[in-house]
Amino acid sequence: MSSDKHLTVVALGGFGEIGLNMMALELGDSIIVVDAGLMFPEEDMFGIDAVIPDFTYLRERYQLIRALIVTHGHEDHIGAVPFFAQEFRVPIYGTTFTLALIREKLREHNLLNRTDLRTIKAEDVIEIGPFKVEPFRVCHSIPDGVGLIIHTPYGPIVHSGDFKLDHTPVDGKRLDVEKLSRATEGRTLLLLSDSTNVEREGYAPSENHIARTLAQIFSESSGRLIFAVFASNIHRIQQIVDIASLHGRKVLFHGKSIQSNVRMASELGYLNLTEAELISLKDLATVPDHQVVMITTGSQGEPMSALTRIAFGDHKWIKIKPGDTVVLSSKFIPGNERTIHNLINHLYRRGAEVIYEKIRDIHASGHAYREELKWLISMVKPRYFVPIHGEYRHLVMHRRIAISMGIPEDRCFIMEDGDTLIIGNGCARLGSKVPFGRIFLDGKGVGDIAGPVLRDRKHLAEDGLVIVSLVIDQEYGGILSGPDVFSRGFISEEMNPEILQAAQCLILELFDQYMEEGVKPEVGELQREIRKQLKKFFHKILGRRPVIYPVIAEV
Amino acid sequence: MSSDKHLTVVALGGFGEIGLNMMALELGDSIIVVDAGLMFPEEDMFGIDAVIPDFTYLRERYQLIRALIVTHGHEDHIGAVPFFAQEFRVPIYGTTFTLALIREKLREHNLLNRTDLRTIKAEDVIEIGPFKVEPFRVCHSIPDGVGLIIHTPYGPIVHSGDFKLDHTPVDGKRLDVEKLSRATEGRTLLLLSDSTNVEREGYAPSENHIARTLAQIFSESSGRLIFAVFASNIHRIQQIVDIASLHGRKVLFHGKSIQSNVRMASELGYLNLTEAELISLKDLATVPDHQVVMITTGSQGEPMSALTRIAFGDHKWIKIKPGDTVVLSSKFIPGNERTIHNLINHLYRRGAEVIYEKIRDIHASGHAYREELKWLISMVKPRYFVPIHGEYRHLVMHRRIAISMGIPEDRCFIMEDGDTLIIGNGCARLGSKVPFGRIFLDGKGVGDIAGPVLRDRKHLAEDGLVIVSLVIDQEYGGILSGPDVFSRGFISEEMNPEILQAAQCLILELFDQYMEEGVKPEVGELQREIRKQLKKFFHKILGRRPVIYPVIAEV
Repeated sequence: MSSDKHLTVVALGGFGEIGLNMMALELGDSIIVVDAGLMFPEEDMFGIDAVIPDFTYLRERYQLIRALIVTHGHEDHIGAVPFFAQEFRVPIYGTTFTLALIREKLREHNLLNRTDLRTIKAEDVIEIGPFKVEPFRVCHSIPDGVGLIIHTPYGPIVHSGDFKLDHTPVDGKRLDVEKLSRATEGRTLLLLSDSTNVEREGYAPSENHIARTLAQIFSESSGRLIFAVFASNIHRIQQIVDIASLHGRKVLFHGKSIQSNVRMASELGYLNLTEAELISLKDLATVPDHQVVMITTGSQGEPMSALTRIAFGDHKWIKIKPGDTVVLSSKFIPGNERTIHNLINHLYRRGAEVIYEKIRDIHASGHAYREELKWLISMVKPRYFVPIHGEYRHLVMHRRIAISMGIPEDRCFIMEDGDTLIIGNGCARLGSKVPFGRIFLDGKGVGDIAGPVLRDRKHLAEDGLVIVSLVIDQEYGGILSGPDVFSRGFISEEMNPEILQAAQCLILELFDQYMEEGVKPEVGELQREIRKQLKKFFHKILGRRPVIYPVIAEV
Repeated sequence: MSSDKHLTVVALGGFGEIGLNMMALELGDSIIVVDAGLMFPEEDMFGIDAVIPDFTYLRERYQLIRALIVTHGHEDHIGAVPFFAQEFRVPIYGTTFTLALIREKLREHNLLNRTDLRTIKAEDVIEIGPFKVEPFRVCHSIPDGVGLIIHTPYGPIVHSGDFKLDHTPVDGKRLDVEKLSRATEGRTLLLLSDSTNVEREGYAPSENHIARTLAQIFSESSGRLIFAVFASNIHRIQQIVDIASLHGRKVLFHGKSIQSNVRMASELGYLNLTEAELISLKDLATVPDHQVVMITTGSQGEPMSALTRIAFGDHKWIKIKPGDTVVLSSKFIPGNERTIHNLINHLYRRGAEVIYEKIRDIHASGHAYREELKWLISMVKPRYFVPIHGEYRHLVMHRRIAISMGIPEDRCFIMEDGDTLIIGNGCARLGSKVPFGRIFLDGKGVGDIAGPVLRDRKHLAEDGLVIVSLVIDQEYGGILSGPDVFSRGFISEEMNPEILQAAQCLILELFDQYMEEGVKPEVGELQREIRKQLKKFFHKILGRRPVIYPVIAEV
């Protein structure tokens, strides 16, 4: 599929879904991988903790892989790094803050010592095999994000990373337009660009835009203030901390992930806490309410988060009281709405004021809106265009924008996971598919759960389970014990004992029938027949189809 | 709790949740019930089809119930009517279109003939026991909705129903301000008002507001047009049909619920099809694409809907082709986002253009926004105020609005399901709680599934199931058959056969131990011990906690 004469772009994740971002560039005997992200499970992935990309394509070409380059430290870009590092011992490149986050992960997986982490800086040009990689600074909802200019013999490729244009970023570090301009010289071979917010018209508001609302909230509140943010949103934290200092409030960072991120960010110079007066949980009781601001996580209603425990009254130290104001300063991730609504209801029930995106302007997205996406296309003038980071509809809309800006249709490609784009001299086309897929993480298991197991979980979830236990005489086929019928998640046995009793009778009748016919039933047939009879019976009387498990022993 | 000297408002459903709307008014020996709605299941209600209110309070007072009055025909107001009618043989009052929808439901439940349905008209005053009930017309996303003015010896109560102010409704029928004004004479005892959209500032756009977007969509499209709407949104259907006639498109109503609603609405004069040229599915192939508009349901991505089948390529007659435009003309109900996104992605994948609320102005809510809620309070000047139809946060916000408009705090009540409000001469207070709750419908079962069954389903869904089968000798305790270990939804047994084998060995070791100690284990203890050992083992090697079901027979 690839040869010395071609450059191949390989879509491994995030092409057709939000999350799971991973792609590879293959040229001759060299492969570089960009990002290794995870995806949070969808509703029907029962019991799954997270999803990572299938590495089969990389596994089959291990010797060719020169490096993994990571654009920024969000989970959908670094969440699969430990699983990658476990398998592929190649250098991992990232900026300072990104590597700090990766280091934490590798430490947890006992992989830190054996992994070759290499810091990239804004001014670096890294040579990796036939590629020269120049990072360029972007604005995003995490510090130290970069896009990549990847120089190839066919011309430069621009990978946007996750980006927005922010003319007034909190840290003053704007997207590095100069570098983008100089490095591409307006003749980009290929633009790979973030499609997350392609549905939104206009420009994303600056992170700075919400400062006014934050200040208002501080002015209005006379009780304790509790902010829930994403732990990696250091600029948001900076804004809250700064306003807190102005209002003479002391800051309590609560929760493991926020404390760890704040520590790292402030040690590395991404967060300035010099003005802040920090307190710890044990000081809380001694500080007057109007002098407290707590910053924590859990804005998505995560069940184990401090905020959820606070909302449900289960937190050991922090009890909500009237006068408290809780601010969910983040977006509602689709799929989490009901959980978040539930969280808000509980906070209100305990007397808190709750402020969230729907009712107040307290979140700014980190992803470019439609006009910004157009800006990037104008800026780098790509010969070929591939939208990345999006569900199928996002990719289609983003491709249309590129076409509307004058890039010929046959040079704008929709790539889905597993697709390859083969770029030669003056031409590009989709090549054959490579292995791809989603690997499920559940507990300590990586990839040991696949479709059939999930289908079983779904069936069990929706209809419950009936177990029939029966011991029969090996020689004559008579019943030695049972039939006993139990259920789980099917009906309330106390309320309706007669249903399982009737099922029992049905099985006995079945045996009577065999007796009459003088047949000794074989175990397999008996299982099939019991399943069939009970299925029909339960459906008739209850309209339900539980999983039926006949356990038949012969002694 | 109630006496001749008091009027009692009883919250039975929808006070603290969206859906499940039901309340009662009790005075002396008379009770009237307002609405009997259902709620669609939340994510963690595995396998549940719908939820209805617990009727225990009504059951205990059957002889006092004089009537059920229904404000409009949405499921969250009439979905529980068949279950109510099954149990309580009292008159059911509703407007013409509302009763037409109820009639369909009762027919399905074989209850139509035995139920006393009474049509109410805008000019009616209905005397029911000590109550005089005057309906007043409201605007909503279904025809023939009303609010209620309920005259009591203590003064009139206004129940808003589901309402919005719409100065340009499609059918020209505005909220009946004159009647509201005349009947209350500015001295309302109590206002019960719809809180659904209290989070939204300003005024809800008129249904008419989206006509422009609809017309644009017709102008832009040269292929087939497919609209997905709620089947009861007759005004939306009217608008689409009218624009279709203007553009020379023929109309295909596709799907059972939409056909049934369209037939009823047009027979009863709520939908005017005289200008429309209707076609049926079999005509579809003979009509040029640019002359077709299909109206169907399925805008929430319901798995069995025609639209989902179309999107997934499973529809027998309708295949999406490039040039088709699909318009989801309804809101994304929270909790359905991912399913809807998935639907949109599939439609795009098949080449359709898809238009939805997020990217175009093609839905107008049927519920009043904040300024309209204020308008109603101004209008009826209630002595007491109770927000209805909302989650807890909605109720709190709505109550605050009432307070901000000058109603004293101690006259604005948050009622949750089961709460009672006791109104006497010149005073009102929350009384003691009555029985309340959620009854789950699953298949044909009504209320036979409760919390523990759902918890089991959740556990099975997340961690799967392990069954251990064992036959032991009744006399000596030795193993006669097994241990056999099976699983469902736990691990892939083909990929990891060694895990269940190891579990088997653990059980055998357990028996060896009993042997050594010369103990014959009792079945209950054996079950506990097997559960304990396997739980520990699975958690250690996989980090998972499946449901473990030891089936042990003694022979």
